[in-house]
Amino acid sequence: MAGGRSAGRGVRGGITAPLGFRASGVWSGIKRNRREDLALIYSLVPARCAGVFTRNAVQAAPILVTRARVRQGTARGVLVNSGNANCCTGRAGIMAAEAMGASVAQALGVAPSHVLVASTGVIGVPLPLRRIVRAVPRLVGRLSRAGGQACARGILTTDRTIKQGARQIELGGRRVTIGGVAKGSGMIAPHMATMLAFFTTDARVSPGFLRAVLRDVTEVTFNAITVDGDMSTNDMAILLANGLAGNRVITGAGEGARRFQEALRDLAEQLAIAIVRDGEGATKVIRVVVRGAGAVGHARAVARAVAQSPLVKTFVHGADPNWGRVVASVGAAPVALRAGRVEVRIGDVLVVRRGEGVRAPKRRLRHVLSQRDVALTVHLHSGRAEAVMWSADLSAEYVRINSRYTS
Amino acid sequence: MAGGRSAGRGVRGGITAPLGFRASGVWSGIKRNRREDLALIYSLVPARCAGVFTRNAVQAAPILVTRARVRQGTARGVLVNSGNANCCTGRAGIMAAEAMGASVAQALGVAPSHVLVASTGVIGVPLPLRRIVRAVPRLVGRLSRAGGQACARGILTTDRTIKQGARQIELGGRRVTIGGVAKGSGMIAPHMATMLAFFTTDARVSPGFLRAVLRDVTEVTFNAITVDGDMSTNDMAILLANGLAGNRVITGAGEGARRFQEALRDLAEQLAIAIVRDGEGATKVIRVVVRGAGAVGHARAVARAVAQSPLVKTFVHGADPNWGRVVASVGAAPVALRAGRVEVRIGDVLVVRRGEGVRAPKRRLRHVLSQRDVALTVHLHSGRAEAVMWSADLSAEYVRINSRYTS
Repeated sequence: MAGGRSAGRGVRGGITAPLGFRASGVWSGIKRNRREDLALIYSLVPARCAGVFTRNAVQAAPILVTRARVRQGTARGVLVNSGNANCCTGRAGIMAAEAMGASVAQALGVAPSHVLVASTGVIGVPLPLRRIVRAVPRLVGRLSRAGGQACARGILTTDRTIKQGARQIELGGRRVTIGGVAKGSGMIAPHMATMLAFFTTDARVSPGFLRAVLRDVTEVTFNAITVDGDMSTNDMAILLANGLAGNRVITGAGEGARRFQEALRDLAEQLAIAIVRDGEGATKVIRVVVRGAGAVGHARAVARAVAQSPLVKTFVHGADPNWGRVVASVGAAPVALRAGRVEVRIGDVLVVRRGEGVRAPKRRLRHVLSQRDVALTVHLHSGRAEAVMWSADLSAEYVRINSRYTS
Repeated sequence: MAGGRSAGRGVRGGITAPLGFRASGVWSGIKRNRREDLALIYSLVPARCAGVFTRNAVQAAPILVTRARVRQGTARGVLVNSGNANCCTGRAGIMAAEAMGASVAQALGVAPSHVLVASTGVIGVPLPLRRIVRAVPRLVGRLSRAGGQACARGILTTDRTIKQGARQIELGGRRVTIGGVAKGSGMIAPHMATMLAFFTTDARVSPGFLRAVLRDVTEVTFNAITVDGDMSTNDMAILLANGLAGNRVITGAGEGARRFQEALRDLAEQLAIAIVRDGEGATKVIRVVVRGAGAVGHARAVARAVAQSPLVKTFVHGADPNWGRVVASVGAAPVALRAGRVEVRIGDVLVVRRGEGVRAPKRRLRHVLSQRDVALTVHLHSGRAEAVMWSADLSAEYVRINSRYTS
């Protein structure tokens, strides 16, 4: 993915690739289609943990419960249910989130506060707690390294494919592994979406580094994707580090920290792009690159405006080279810019220079726009800051999926 | 429309309803389908003028030309072409905008700077100036009161219906008339969209009042609608007042100003809602009302977040009572709010109270959501400020229209 960068070696598997992690997934009866709807990630030894959570003002019960637990810094595992968001469910929802965690903690013989919980699915429906509790013995009984696959399936909602991966780096002669699993796929927007991402690693890390690396990596990966501009009430990214690799503790400075961060970023980027590719109704991934901005914040705002524009998303969908919409969305970004300097490329084809359209070969543009991956590059010629954002095209299928989600 | 408010009497016609205004529309050859693509509005005597323009950083040539002309305060008419936005066309575009206006000015024998120009259509294609100039004699020759209809057709792009109306009020024994015409229908978002709106009135008004009333009315009508969240490079609203009604000059204070503003607001609201109803692929108008906000800015931000959410727009489209998406979009608004106080109604059905879902009758909800007009009301219980925003549902048809616009 990251080409020349030292992004670690891709290895098979996902969250159970690092030493000492087990996982499982079962069907508890929340989903009607008999697919796995309960997933568990477990570390054989206590792990340090860090988390990043939705910035939506409305937060689901598991967000409230898990945020408080992550603050303690230590966890043994994560219990996830799909098919029900446990959101707008009031005090009963909080109690249900605690109870689902407690049933797993009891089965595993660990402290209840060491089990993090996450939910994804429909908002406003009471969590079917009894079904979950009844399924917990099976869920715990199936914990294994091979269970990573079932776990990856168990966190999905409208996703069509599982999203997982792993990276390996050598640190001072020790092999350090990072694994990850994620789900999309609607309500994907900057600052966390109905997106769940869980990372495991056997690296030994300081608590401060763990928090910082997750925050920094999330910012340029999961917070740089958008499917529909909506922001969910339930998303979180969690990173568990159990230290079993035995490396010298990574503290934030130095080569080890740099390489760990690069490997985590590479893995998170893979999962983030996979979420976009599997976005509801998506047929293409649009990579919006903004260069030459006066500040990173400006570059991000412009990239977001282009990436979220329904008119941009539809012309890419139809491979219709209507680049004027890119210019219009750039101009609509809440950023002061010099329209007369703007340069736009679709793929490698220059279509706007100094704010003016250039005669571009239509056939070549249509070819570029027909690919599974379409790059839109905007150069503002006003500075040196850059930003990248990934988006999906907008198809009639998106509308079909979302006009009968609860029905 | 405005019910109990003194919004003036609705009268037949549009921009030619006030005294001394004539209009026309012809096909010049820009549009491929032989429909009118050139429109002219003309006042028999010099009129005071005011304008509101797109806040997009990228502005089409006619915006630049017309903004400068409006600043002089006097105009005789507005020349509009559809099918080509004359945007991202550089210096040649500015010259083309000036030239199209000059050809009309010459034919009418008025000062070139007294002809305002507007364009709407595809971005980045050179304006076919010769076709326009060749059609100007026909356009001017057909100026008449009955020509308001052809003019209303001549400004359309993907719109399915013309949008016009008129209001009448009595001021000190004088009959004052306001007429209006508008077009949508994609790229409709707050702060002007690919939206053109022209108002004419025979009222005598002070220049300061003319500017203020257009700005205030635009804020709560055209800037309170959204079809797809995109903001165009070309929109403008223009108000011409030729004074032929002979009323005492309206200066801003007093009953006359209040009644004129209310009539203009009522007319603008009618046209704004008509734009939403005719939005690309729209089958329903969604009226988002936010109450109980701490400030008007907060109310607007929340209303906008709900109105623009694709997930909200799709559940309304499918009449699928997935109200959790309303809560999620409220929470995603860039406003501090107390999630535990939020109340949501779909139509008159309460679905969320104190941030929690209430058991709502599904059949009743589906009935409410199946109507042509759907109201979503959010009460924040944090203050007394309110805002209203109109939006359209999101249909597969929207995607079809916008994935092959230029093809």
